[in-house]
Amino acid sequence: MNIIAISGSLRKDSFNTALVRALQPLAPAGMQIEVVDINTLPMFNQDDEAAFPKEAQALKDKVAAADGVIFATPEYNRSIPGVLKNAIDWASRPWGHNSFAGKAALTMGVSVGKIGTAVAQSHLRQILAYLDMQIVGQPELYLGPAQTIFDGEGNITDTSAKESLVKALEALASRVA
Amino acid sequence: MNIIAISGSLRKDSFNTALVRALQPLAPAGMQIEVVDINTLPMFNQDDEAAFPKEAQALKDKVAAADGVIFATPEYNRSIPGVLKNAIDWASRPWGHNSFAGKAALTMGVSVGKIGTAVAQSHLRQILAYLDMQIVGQPELYLGPAQTIFDGEGNITDTSAKESLVKALEALASRVA
Amino acid sequence: MNIIAISGSLRKDSFNTALVRALQPLAPAGMQIEVVDINTLPMFNQDDEAAFPKEAQALKDKVAAADGVIFATPEYNRSIPGVLKNAIDWASRPWGHNSFAGKAALTMGVSVGKIGTAVAQSHLRQILAYLDMQIVGQPELYLGPAQTIFDGEGNITDTSAKESLVKALEALASRVA
Amino acid sequence: MNIIAISGSLRKDSFNTALVRALQPLAPAGMQIEVVDINTLPMFNQDDEAAFPKEAQALKDKVAAADGVIFATPEYNRSIPGVLKNAIDWASRPWGHNSFAGKAALTMGVSVGKIGTAVAQSHLRQILAYLDMQIVGQPELYLGPAQTIFDGEGNITDTSAKESLVKALEALASRVA
Repeated sequence: MNIIAISGSLRKDSFNTALVRALQPLAPAGMQIEVVDINTLPMFNQDDEAAFPKEAQALKDKVAAADGVIFATPEYNRSIPGVLKNAIDWASRPWGHNSFAGKAALTMGVSVGKIGTAVAQSHLRQILAYLDMQIVGQPELYLGPAQTIFDGEGNITDTSAKESLVKALEALASRVA
Repeated sequence: MNIIAISGSLRKDSFNTALVRALQPLAPAGMQIEVVDINTLPMFNQDDEAAFPKEAQALKDKVAAADGVIFATPEYNRSIPGVLKNAIDWASRPWGHNSFAGKAALTMGVSVGKIGTAVAQSHLRQILAYLDMQIVGQPELYLGPAQTIFDGEGNITDTSAKESLVKALEALASRVA
Repeated sequence: MNIIAISGSLRKDSFNTALVRALQPLAPAGMQIEVVDINTLPMFNQDDEAAFPKEAQALKDKVAAADGVIFATPEYNRSIPGVLKNAIDWASRPWGHNSFAGKAALTMGVSVGKIGTAVAQSHLRQILAYLDMQIVGQPELYLGPAQTIFDGEGNITDTSAKESLVKALEALASRVA
Repeated sequence: MNIIAISGSLRKDSFNTALVRALQPLAPAGMQIEVVDINTLPMFNQDDEAAFPKEAQALKDKVAAADGVIFATPEYNRSIPGVLKNAIDWASRPWGHNSFAGKAALTMGVSVGKIGTAVAQSHLRQILAYLDMQIVGQPELYLGPAQTIFDGEGNITDTSAKESLVKALEALASRVA
């Protein structure tokens, strides 16, 4: 089972990037989780679809080859970052070639505050439903405050967070199978 | 395959009630669609959970026995009607006894205007994702204007609407199987 | 300045009802906050608009006479309760007689968990924007866990919650003026 | 009264860009509408806040100097484009220096289909409420199909669309005053 994981933050020390990097040891047997960067994507412009930029094509290919996609999103202004939406916009295009269709999807997020990016994830799930993904509804992963989740080296030390993540990855596997 | 269909409107001549009533002939072989009324439900009050009202229990039992649920929703004030949310609130309770969990779900709506209850359905899908339903993402069913969809006797006469409904019911079946 | 406050919960010991009851001492000079019940409203049915039910008319009259409305909402299934939406649906009708139009609005919520009804409030604000209310955007009031906010008699004892409420009520006053 | 207008599309022949360009003649006396491009913004990265990119600073300065902001948004995957969200993310930062706070806001959108970007605008309004903008709630501007709104030279020829736009710009003026 081939899963890709995308962090919605470009920040070097992003908690959400730390989160996707920490997932592999929590995955059920047979699930490979590859972290995919969205750092080098250009801004989506429909005029560029005719000659798809190679970074956007690379993302599309990764999505197309995967069984499922994990999105770890920060919450910016009570929605997902423009950066993450831009990546989704690219891989959903051109019309009729939505690479997400039919794939399993899992959303998660970690924040410094207590909300755990819940509002951003509510937008994200609406978007993923439109893209015809098979969304894991439960458990929800509203993780935070971030400082209590990780140790200094980006390992997940919070037991309850770890258990939720294990359950969510199992649910993701069941959406694929 | 046992599907129940709920209209979010109590209005006697509701287009959304007409819609759920018109679905059976469009269903794939083996799918039975039963229209379930929410007209007699009391207002949800958590204090009443200890002695669950019999109308609410009847709805919960219908949901629990079904393979999937169809929701046809009007759009009131850019969200779903309180009446429909109230029915969902009852059948999701008490805590740990969410009757919707794991069931397939299909949302649709017809409006007099051109939006076809798209915004209401975006709220509804968020709610259904939380309830851990397996949501049909595509095709979307934003039907309207209502007068062009039905003939005078509530039959669906719009060919394109009919085709979308057939496809959506097939997608619902595949979410169950 | 005449403000009404509505709790979205019918539960007798509701934290959100406790919240609206605790607001008056935190209000700026000249602001009267009246708690308005929505317990006895019937389910909205458009067929009943011709002879508006007297409980619904009473709510409409309260809203029409007010300078602003405070909504304290629980989060049920990641949206507002059906009960609260039903009250809003009544007071917004009939078409062309939306009693909320132009009034100031403030949303808040308290929950047992840590989210503080943030997702429910995001739906609520969308609805209130459609109803053409003048929404207080900041500060947001995502209060919780509930047990840390109140003492045993429903007084708000959390200093930070209290300060946010004072600021929000001042912002509400400025939306009226 | 100094208003800036932002189109959420980078496409050269974008209907939403045509829309913001066509607004000035519909504005009430005393309202200047300047179209501001977001084409050259880099992707938001919090690490770059310390040395704010000059294109992002230019956008922030335009917003800060304006009395109000008009957003014309396409709908990509049932939300706003990543490109538009990215522009909003920049101008809202750094923390405590949200340039949108207190400004009047108007949302609109035109689409090839019939929805008129209604769902995207529902996300956008949530975001703008968080940013503490004074949002025009009514009239809503869900314009489409695009081909019926404009003539071949980008002039708005649809009478009803024109009337709604005039009313909305007047409502925007009243939010400023």
